[in-house]
This record gives sequence, structure tokens and C-alpha cells, in this order.
Amino acid sequence: MSLVIVGSVAYDGVETPHGRVDRMLGGACTYIALSASYFTPVSIVGVVGDDFAQEDVDLLAGRNIDLAGLERVPGKTFFWQGVYSQDMNDRETLRTDLNVFADFQPKLPESYKSQEFLMLGNIQPGLQRQVRSQMSNPKTVGGDTMNYWIADFREELLATIKEWDFLLINDGEAKMLSGETNMRKAAAKILQMGPNTLVIKRGEYGAMLFRKDDYFIVPGYLLEQVFDPTGAGDCFAGGFIGYLAQQGISLSSGDIDRRELSRAVIYGSVMGSFCCEEFGVDRFRTLTRAEIDGRFQEFKKFTEF
Amino acid sequence: MSLVIVGSVAYDGVETPHGRVDRMLGGACTYIALSASYFTPVSIVGVVGDDFAQEDVDLLAGRNIDLAGLERVPGKTFFWQGVYSQDMNDRETLRTDLNVFADFQPKLPESYKSQEFLMLGNIQPGLQRQVRSQMSNPKTVGGDTMNYWIADFREELLATIKEWDFLLINDGEAKMLSGETNMRKAAAKILQMGPNTLVIKRGEYGAMLFRKDDYFIVPGYLLEQVFDPTGAGDCFAGGFIGYLAQQGISLSSGDIDRRELSRAVIYGSVMGSFCCEEFGVDRFRTLTRAEIDGRFQEFKKFTEF
Repeated sequence: MSLVIVGSVAYDGVETPHGRVDRMLGGACTYIALSASYFTPVSIVGVVGDDFAQEDVDLLAGRNIDLAGLERVPGKTFFWQGVYSQDMNDRETLRTDLNVFADFQPKLPESYKSQEFLMLGNIQPGLQRQVRSQMSNPKTVGGDTMNYWIADFREELLATIKEWDFLLINDGEAKMLSGETNMRKAAAKILQMGPNTLVIKRGEYGAMLFRKDDYFIVPGYLLEQVFDPTGAGDCFAGGFIGYLAQQGISLSSGDIDRRELSRAVIYGSVMGSFCCEEFGVDRFRTLTRAEIDGRFQEFKKFTEF
Repeated sequence: MSLVIVGSVAYDGVETPHGRVDRMLGGACTYIALSASYFTPVSIVGVVGDDFAQEDVDLLAGRNIDLAGLERVPGKTFFWQGVYSQDMNDRETLRTDLNVFADFQPKLPESYKSQEFLMLGNIQPGLQRQVRSQMSNPKTVGGDTMNYWIADFREELLATIKEWDFLLINDGEAKMLSGETNMRKAAAKILQMGPNTLVIKRGEYGAMLFRKDDYFIVPGYLLEQVFDPTGAGDCFAGGFIGYLAQQGISLSSGDIDRRELSRAVIYGSVMGSFCCEEFGVDRFRTLTRAEIDGRFQEFKKFTEF
């Protein structure tokens, strides 16, 4: 089934202990889309400025990503700059220039409206809700959010995720949203806010999926070297929702194969791990589906007992 | 097969967000022994003062732990006092009175010397080595250590673990011992120091086992409530080595069933999780082997895909 992805398309400046790139393709929508494109047909909604390079259009188009919803307007593309700590568990934002993203009003092309899956990247909750309402009858809707919306746009966020089938956030955000430090309690509270499925990303420690009366946990993949963690969480999201779309597993249906959900979490983890192996989106220039399935088997091997 | 455990037997004063106990049975040897006693015959070596209570002797004896090597000398038993942070991921030591433990010179009773398994709790590396030399021909030897010995007794520690089959430490200690922040690189370096098996505990995030060309990772059990994490790492050790001893799996042999090693890590995780459910050793007053095997099955359920 086909998947619509909404979110930021950006340029990033990133410094890690392994190097520095002043300007490279980035943004949540970009990472989610590249990742999901290995599993299912993908259409994106975003906005870029007139500085957006043809080679970046080509990279996305080369992965068969539908760019009908990628609006190009006068001005500069969203720019983010950050520097990672030595162990790469922390990062400091040096600069955020919203540029054309400041006035982003996502509009879905007609061809998108009847698609089955909708993944809302981290943007203002009101915009996420407005995109949701443009879809005719999606089978699975969900997305991501961040600390800023949880703290300062709480009511709007709650009204937004109430309509979602799944919420995909990190452990810090789950604690903040629920007000609970215990993960089991946090998950139980969030599952009462609307989504029937909650996925919690834990960075290097892996991920968890919660549904009423059931949960699944996977440890993170042990990379020999993490070059750049930028986008890993979004690539996780792309692998997770991309696999579900590929398998035609709708999260709005009552009866879902628990094994398939777990596999979606594994594919998310696989895609997140590949993302860290090179700077920015570079790993996706060479990554193959065979490598993805190979790493899926590795996960089986190192977790089975 | 039978198991000899060496380490501290102590009284602890502990404060967590859930309560406070001024004085209760504790010590690495105590926790390891109680945990391992669910799997295999256990004999302990330690020292206590003349203040050591009969009810604490009774608790250990009640789990069929051989106390022939528990020396009682004039003076006070080792006392440790600490307070945990709100999220219980940090703790501050308020007081450490070594008391009779300061002059601990472990002596193995004759009946211990021919036993098959030896687990050396965290004590001064030279003492660990001296205990090792008292055993006639153990099939499996290993143990724990801590940041203090890694930093200030490095050469002595390296000479000690060189003779071990397994080393069981936490992730911070593994980084410190290896000088590597990447876990895969850290493990590879440590496996060149002597032990053929390295187990790394990651607290709430679970545990990892490394051998040459192979590894296994399990996430941590999600407790609804952590009352007191004191001793959890030692209970992990007891479950891990206790299960191997029960199954008669010698880590000095060349060919070991990888599944059995993984199961030992799961039993370690199971025992660590139970330990946190009540203050100090209290959970072991009621815990049954059926509950242990039940939680083992839970681990299967929430990690399988």
C-alpha cells in the first residue's frame, strides 16, 4: 500500500567526532521517505526554497519518491546546524533558520488523498491535524512529535494524536507526554490518549512497541562506528511504517498479527542503524534491500535464545 | 555442578524514592548466592562481625547455602549506606565502613577446593587471584570488578582476569577497562585480556554477552515499579553463573552451545529484575523457581519476532 509522508525537507550542517559537513540534504521528511522507499511507494509533502539543489531532487526521485507534493517557493530552504558530543549521545543546536518552512501550509495533491498510509513527521500539531483532514479515508495514520510541542502546544497536540493509530516518539518525549518516569506506566497512559500503538525509540538502546496488554522490546544494533546519528530516528520511522505499508497491515483494524508488528520494529531498527553509518543521507546512495534483509537476519541471530 | 562464591557480606542502609531502610542484609556475595541458589548448590566465602544476626544466617541457610566459608570475627560487619536519585539511575554513597572486611583474607574450606565453578564477587583483584589459586582445578572461573580497581589497580586486575573464563561488568566499567566508548570495540579489546566470555550489564537497558565472533543482546525487563535496585547486578551474576552450573556448562571448554549461554543471560536478567521488586534481599524470602521460569517465558514473549 502507498504511503504519504509530511515533514521538513532541509539542509543540515553537522559536526560529529568523525568529521564535519557544512551543508547537506536533511529534514525529517527526507529521512523518513528515503527509508520507507525501500519497502513501499512513497509520496512526500514538504516545502523547499529556490536554493534546493537538483542533485537532491534527483536523489529522492531516484528512489521513486513521488515529489508532486514538494512545493518550491522563493526564499531559502530550512537550515539546521548542530554539533554532537564525543560519545554522540548529546547534540547541541548551533543554528535553526526556518526560512521558507516558517510559512509551511501543507497541501496534498489530489493523487495523494486516497492513499492508505499517512506518516506525519514532527511539525506543528495543528498542521499535522490539518493534513490528516485532507486525506479521504486513510487506513493507518500516525506520526512523531517533539518536546517543544509537548510542553507548549499540549492541548493542540492531544487533539491531534487522538485521531492517530500510532504515535512514534523517543523515551524522553514519552516521559514528558505522560508525566511518568516508569516506561510501562508512561505507555499505559499514552495508549489512553488515542493511538492503539505506541512505538518508543531509545537511541542506541533500541526500541519498544506497546499495545493494550502486549509489548515488544528490541535492543539496538551495535555499530562498529557511528559516523552521524542525524536522522536515525526518522529512518526508524520510515522502516517501521514502510514495512507495515508493504505488508498491507492497517493499524486501524482490530486484529493484527503481533509478529508482523514486531518485524516492523526490527525493520525500523535496521534502517536507523544504516543511517548512522555515513554522514547525512549518504548511506542511502548505496544501500540495497538485500543489505536490509541481511541485517534483519542479524537481529534474529543476536536476540534469539 | 556446585558453585563457590566469594565476596562481601554486609549490612546496607538504603534510601530510594519508595522508602528507606536503615540496616538490612546486603553485600555482593549475599546477593549472588541467594540468586544462584535457585539453580545449583552454592558455597560462600566471606567475613562478618559478631553483630551478624542469626536471622540473616537463617535466611542464607534456608536457601541451602553452605556457610562453612563464612568467617565470623570480632568487630562489626561491613556497612554501606547510599541514597538513590528520583529516577534511580544514580546513587550517592553516604557512608562506607569496611570494618571486619578491611582485613578479609579469604580462606577456602577443604570441601570447597574441588568444586567446579568459582564466582569472584567484586573485591581487591589480588584477593580474587589468591582465591583462584586455592581451588584445585575449577572448570569455570570468573567474576566482577569495579571502577576503583580498574583505575588504581590496573596491572593487578589484568593479571587476575587473565586467568578467568568470564568477566561480568557493567557498560561504564567496560568502557573504562578497554578505553573504548564503542561497545563492540570495547568487547573485542577485553576479550583479548584473557576471558573467553564477556558479559556486560546495562542496568535498565538489559545485558550483552560477547565471545569471539559472536554476541547476544537482551533488553531489560520493564518493571512496573523499581523499589530498590541495590544488588540487581549481583543477582544477575548469580542467575547467569547459577544457570551454567546447573546445566553443567563449563566456560573453559572449547565448544559451548550458544543458546545455553544466551539462556544464562536471560536467567541473569530475570534474577536482576526480581531483586528490584522489594527492598534489599526481601524478594528472595518468597521467590519461587516457578516464578523465575514464568518470567523467563515472558522474556521469550516480548523479544520474539
